[in-house]
Amino acid sequence: MTSAVFDHPWLSGLFNDPEMAALLSPDRQMAQMLAFEAAWSRACGAAGLFDTEMAAEAASAIESAKIDFADIAAGMAQDGVPVPRLVRQLKAVAPAEAVHKGATSQDVVDTALVLSLRAASNLIDTRLAGLDEALTELEARFGDAPLMGRTRMQAATEITVRDRLLAWRLPLSGHRERLAALRPQVEQVQIGGASGDRKALGDKADAVVTAVAQELGLASTDKAWHAMREGIAGYASFLSLVTGTLGKIGGDVALMAQQGVEDIALSGGGGSSAMPHKQNPVAAELLVTLGRYNATQVSAMHHAMLHEQERSGVAWTLEWMVLPQMLMTTARALAVAQDIAGKVTRLGAS
Amino acid sequence: MTSAVFDHPWLSGLFNDPEMAALLSPDRQMAQMLAFEAAWSRACGAAGLFDTEMAAEAASAIESAKIDFADIAAGMAQDGVPVPRLVRQLKAVAPAEAVHKGATSQDVVDTALVLSLRAASNLIDTRLAGLDEALTELEARFGDAPLMGRTRMQAATEITVRDRLLAWRLPLSGHRERLAALRPQVEQVQIGGASGDRKALGDKADAVVTAVAQELGLASTDKAWHAMREGIAGYASFLSLVTGTLGKIGGDVALMAQQGVEDIALSGGGGSSAMPHKQNPVAAELLVTLGRYNATQVSAMHHAMLHEQERSGVAWTLEWMVLPQMLMTTARALAVAQDIAGKVTRLGAS
Amino acid sequence: MTSAVFDHPWLSGLFNDPEMAALLSPDRQMAQMLAFEAAWSRACGAAGLFDTEMAAEAASAIESAKIDFADIAAGMAQDGVPVPRLVRQLKAVAPAEAVHKGATSQDVVDTALVLSLRAASNLIDTRLAGLDEALTELEARFGDAPLMGRTRMQAATEITVRDRLLAWRLPLSGHRERLAALRPQVEQVQIGGASGDRKALGDKADAVVTAVAQELGLASTDKAWHAMREGIAGYASFLSLVTGTLGKIGGDVALMAQQGVEDIALSGGGGSSAMPHKQNPVAAELLVTLGRYNATQVSAMHHAMLHEQERSGVAWTLEWMVLPQMLMTTARALAVAQDIAGKVTRLGAS
Amino acid sequence: MTSAVFDHPWLSGLFNDPEMAALLSPDRQMAQMLAFEAAWSRACGAAGLFDTEMAAEAASAIESAKIDFADIAAGMAQDGVPVPRLVRQLKAVAPAEAVHKGATSQDVVDTALVLSLRAASNLIDTRLAGLDEALTELEARFGDAPLMGRTRMQAATEITVRDRLLAWRLPLSGHRERLAALRPQVEQVQIGGASGDRKALGDKADAVVTAVAQELGLASTDKAWHAMREGIAGYASFLSLVTGTLGKIGGDVALMAQQGVEDIALSGGGGSSAMPHKQNPVAAELLVTLGRYNATQVSAMHHAMLHEQERSGVAWTLEWMVLPQMLMTTARALAVAQDIAGKVTRLGAS
Repeated sequence: MTSAVFDHPWLSGLFNDPEMAALLSPDRQMAQMLAFEAAWSRACGAAGLFDTEMAAEAASAIESAKIDFADIAAGMAQDGVPVPRLVRQLKAVAPAEAVHKGATSQDVVDTALVLSLRAASNLIDTRLAGLDEALTELEARFGDAPLMGRTRMQAATEITVRDRLLAWRLPLSGHRERLAALRPQVEQVQIGGASGDRKALGDKADAVVTAVAQELGLASTDKAWHAMREGIAGYASFLSLVTGTLGKIGGDVALMAQQGVEDIALSGGGGSSAMPHKQNPVAAELLVTLGRYNATQVSAMHHAMLHEQERSGVAWTLEWMVLPQMLMTTARALAVAQDIAGKVTRLGAS
Repeated sequence: MTSAVFDHPWLSGLFNDPEMAALLSPDRQMAQMLAFEAAWSRACGAAGLFDTEMAAEAASAIESAKIDFADIAAGMAQDGVPVPRLVRQLKAVAPAEAVHKGATSQDVVDTALVLSLRAASNLIDTRLAGLDEALTELEARFGDAPLMGRTRMQAATEITVRDRLLAWRLPLSGHRERLAALRPQVEQVQIGGASGDRKALGDKADAVVTAVAQELGLASTDKAWHAMREGIAGYASFLSLVTGTLGKIGGDVALMAQQGVEDIALSGGGGSSAMPHKQNPVAAELLVTLGRYNATQVSAMHHAMLHEQERSGVAWTLEWMVLPQMLMTTARALAVAQDIAGKVTRLGAS
Repeated sequence: MTSAVFDHPWLSGLFNDPEMAALLSPDRQMAQMLAFEAAWSRACGAAGLFDTEMAAEAASAIESAKIDFADIAAGMAQDGVPVPRLVRQLKAVAPAEAVHKGATSQDVVDTALVLSLRAASNLIDTRLAGLDEALTELEARFGDAPLMGRTRMQAATEITVRDRLLAWRLPLSGHRERLAALRPQVEQVQIGGASGDRKALGDKADAVVTAVAQELGLASTDKAWHAMREGIAGYASFLSLVTGTLGKIGGDVALMAQQGVEDIALSGGGGSSAMPHKQNPVAAELLVTLGRYNATQVSAMHHAMLHEQERSGVAWTLEWMVLPQMLMTTARALAVAQDIAGKVTRLGAS
Repeated sequence: MTSAVFDHPWLSGLFNDPEMAALLSPDRQMAQMLAFEAAWSRACGAAGLFDTEMAAEAASAIESAKIDFADIAAGMAQDGVPVPRLVRQLKAVAPAEAVHKGATSQDVVDTALVLSLRAASNLIDTRLAGLDEALTELEARFGDAPLMGRTRMQAATEITVRDRLLAWRLPLSGHRERLAALRPQVEQVQIGGASGDRKALGDKADAVVTAVAQELGLASTDKAWHAMREGIAGYASFLSLVTGTLGKIGGDVALMAQQGVEDIALSGGGGSSAMPHKQNPVAAELLVTLGRYNATQVSAMHHAMLHEQERSGVAWTLEWMVLPQMLMTTARALAVAQDIAGKVTRLGAS
């Protein structure tokens, strides 16, 4: 079964984004969980919580461990999280004393998430810049052409292609600035231990947190952020702002491509099984779909802020269901928008 | 990459429902699209639109065709739908004249969807009945036990376990009645042709529609329903009503399992990587998560009713992103609720 | 302050529906709460819970009571519900013994809600019928006219105006059937008492419930439904299905009214402060807005199904924020659609 | 009729926030529209678009104009916007030549909106600071007290009250930083004219925009932002992040106040009409309700980003239905959270 369009054997042809998919792959997720556990062992060793040599040995064993995913799956229904089984597997190949000691599930899972988001943010930023450039190029080619301005779906007064293109392009640099401001709110190590108070680390807590953060290239924090999800929800909001902007572009392109309007010409275009002559604006429509998808999902991410006490299984699990697909949606929308920009052969009155 | 929790190598251990997954598998989806195409060829042949023998040959070739999913995927980005490539593949192995003639993409895709929903509805109905029974049994075992009634999160007056169980169980038979009423609104063949007017079928339209419907065991219709999505959106609403009821059960169980309350005892329960003594109510929390997930997704399905003109690529594609996961969520929630019911070892004051 | 467009001194000109507004007015809400309390006193008297004469005196005093809304408002922040203060006011003018005894807040508020929904359903049903008729008339006038079928926002093949009109009209009778099926699920008296178990009524519970239900013209129930909200959430889903259908009509009309397409001509149409020549399809756009509004709100109503224990302040209060505006939105959309139908002066190619 | 809880004669006692209500009142909205029109006349005069003296006369007449709201309401259903009728009224009392010339509806309405948001932001910022202080004070009073940490709704390990309070308080300063960063993205004058290209202003466009912006204390812009709604949608996202944080606090308080847990004691608390002994945590529950309300509404604001062409009646109108109530919700939640903080008489084990 493949419930998500991104992974479906044929629907993926429309929806999948291979680059983002690679960043979010289970193998990468597992590698990031192991990176946390290895950094943890080393940091605890360096802080004197256990022997340094044993720490090094554990870290090395963790990094080269072959993880049995099926075993972890078998534990999920019981534990609700992958970490108990993962730790059991790690302890079988590394000195048990030096594995995961003083850490807890969300430390592993949320720090790994943050490492994924860092990679995703790089990709999104690059694509926002690329799309900005592509639209700038369209403006250079077609900006001066006359275009009928349309307000409330009605012909209004003549504008130029530039006027419309600016409404597509200007938000992009703002989105890059938003992302730059968001990243430090998100790219923080999560370390709390049992009830989030780092108590098991005693007076070594600061040293451990700092060392793990440094090894993973994340910011250190004074307090576990696990039960404070505004960073994650804010990030999801950002993703939907981006796809909202791209959805507006897609909607405009589909309207411009209508017979009787014809303010745009595109090379390529979708076929119909019944009407081979048609050139459907499939990519433009897809941008609208992706925009509306994220505009719905963002609601779940805001609901997931209502996180009970020191850790909510409910709210956290809801994020898992929603955020990866918002990332896939955003990446795909950026690729599709860029693709559309590259296929424009005319903008403005024909 | 595996963007959906249902298909993820280890998260699936918590979320996947193998039975529903099988019903929605790509292989089953393809088999249903082929069933439509074969029925179509036979029906057109019987109606005299082309030679009956050629129709039979085509239908037989379609039914045994080995479909190249990768080729269809390659066409998706271009066409936005799988059907043009599928038809091309079928025409390579069957008499081209007798393949898909007069049909269009949504006829294939939406009729196949309806066949999936029929199977899903059977499963959901069976599970609703099973859960009803399981809760009835709990009532027989514990119904008379005293329980502190709680209103607005505060102890109110003493009630019995039966009083609370009834609020869990009574909605289930109503859901079964809802489903029974919904099914005829959904289990209808979709046939429209190019612009949905069946014009290519001429005066054979009724005969073809009736024959295809009969072969597939679906209701016939006077008009293509493709641009009228209230049946599908109503079905999605039903799914979320079910998970809403189950989410209430899960929320109650999690509250009852708290230390200091302890109105329930369950065998099993989730482990913690930091606190081996804990018994987390993972299944109960999951019911809440699944309820909130569907409560969000239902919004997208209602947005998808705003379907432009004779066919909207935007709205239709949005359904593909959302509905399969709502089905998976509902099936999983029903299985989890049944599982919880089976693990109750005490209800009411300890 | 007027936070809602329906009540705003000038925005109401676009959004308000005076008929639905009257049905949902605070005065009507209060009258319905008093109707419940009066019926309650009489039913308890008849059941022998207290003296019949005193019951009649109480009922009569309740029915003619002048309620001080400001006093109730003052109690809301404290109690979260209007009933404690309302009962205090009633006890000041009626024999206290015979007022509200054995009832609780949700009995009053939810039964009053159901009386509002009954009136709202009548209005909605009448309007669905009226719109069906108006569209049938359009079909009679313009059904045979040729129209370019449009799929995926592209000209496809020629259809007739009838083909498109059917996709607007056919769902309406289905909506009427849905409503007829829903009403018995909703039009039920809510009676539970303190923790919802009717215990305070002892062996008179059935008699009281039956009598109150009969006096108010509602169905009786074996169990308080207060903590089972699937009826209410299903009703909200229905409202959004209706506005989804109307949103599709509005979207189509706005697309048809575009320059270069001109498949519709309407008398009237909106002015622009900058471009007096324009005829904006304000009403058509409004249908889309109202459809998207309800498609969002329906999500909150499904979240509100996750109702804790015997009574959730959280979930119940969320319904209060959302459901009245969904009703206003639905009524307004029906009126606007009817208005558009009445202004069509041409459908099909000009 | 009063469809919104904020304005309802008695429900307002629970939901209304008088300060925010005053900021968003129709009188204030109108004053802000008039402020724009007066600034516009002055700026155009100063730029030489018409006589300066006439400009001054117009501005003065505009500022003291008595506006007939009912007349504007009467125009709304026709025009979809209040501005055509408003301008007609203004031209009746001021030199018509110098009124609104070269401006359009969204210039007036969106600039007035921005002035409302500026005032709202001031209030929200003040309250975030006040709540931060109140929680800091609670920490001073109760921070060292032991508290049972609870993860996944289960007792975990002992923490301190400080640990939980930090998860409530730390997000607040982050929200203030978010708001500070957002404000320049929102507090921008909107000036576009007919199709958003400022063409009617010719080479005086920059001068006029600069002057209007300066008079109103807003940032100037190179381009009308009317069709780029990411600023507004981002602002709405911020509101929901705030109420998400407060919803978490409310949820925690309600859980802490349970019998059997009793980790908090509050003075005051809600009454029940059936059980006078109960102390319902009405305020805490309300925080959860308000959080879930905004978490739903934010979705509509993201959908409204899909804004067609130079101006969408659909998307813009959807914002009007949603944003004012999100502001009211946020303000009320902040007041309620502060109120709860002030009523805490004990935190931690009793």
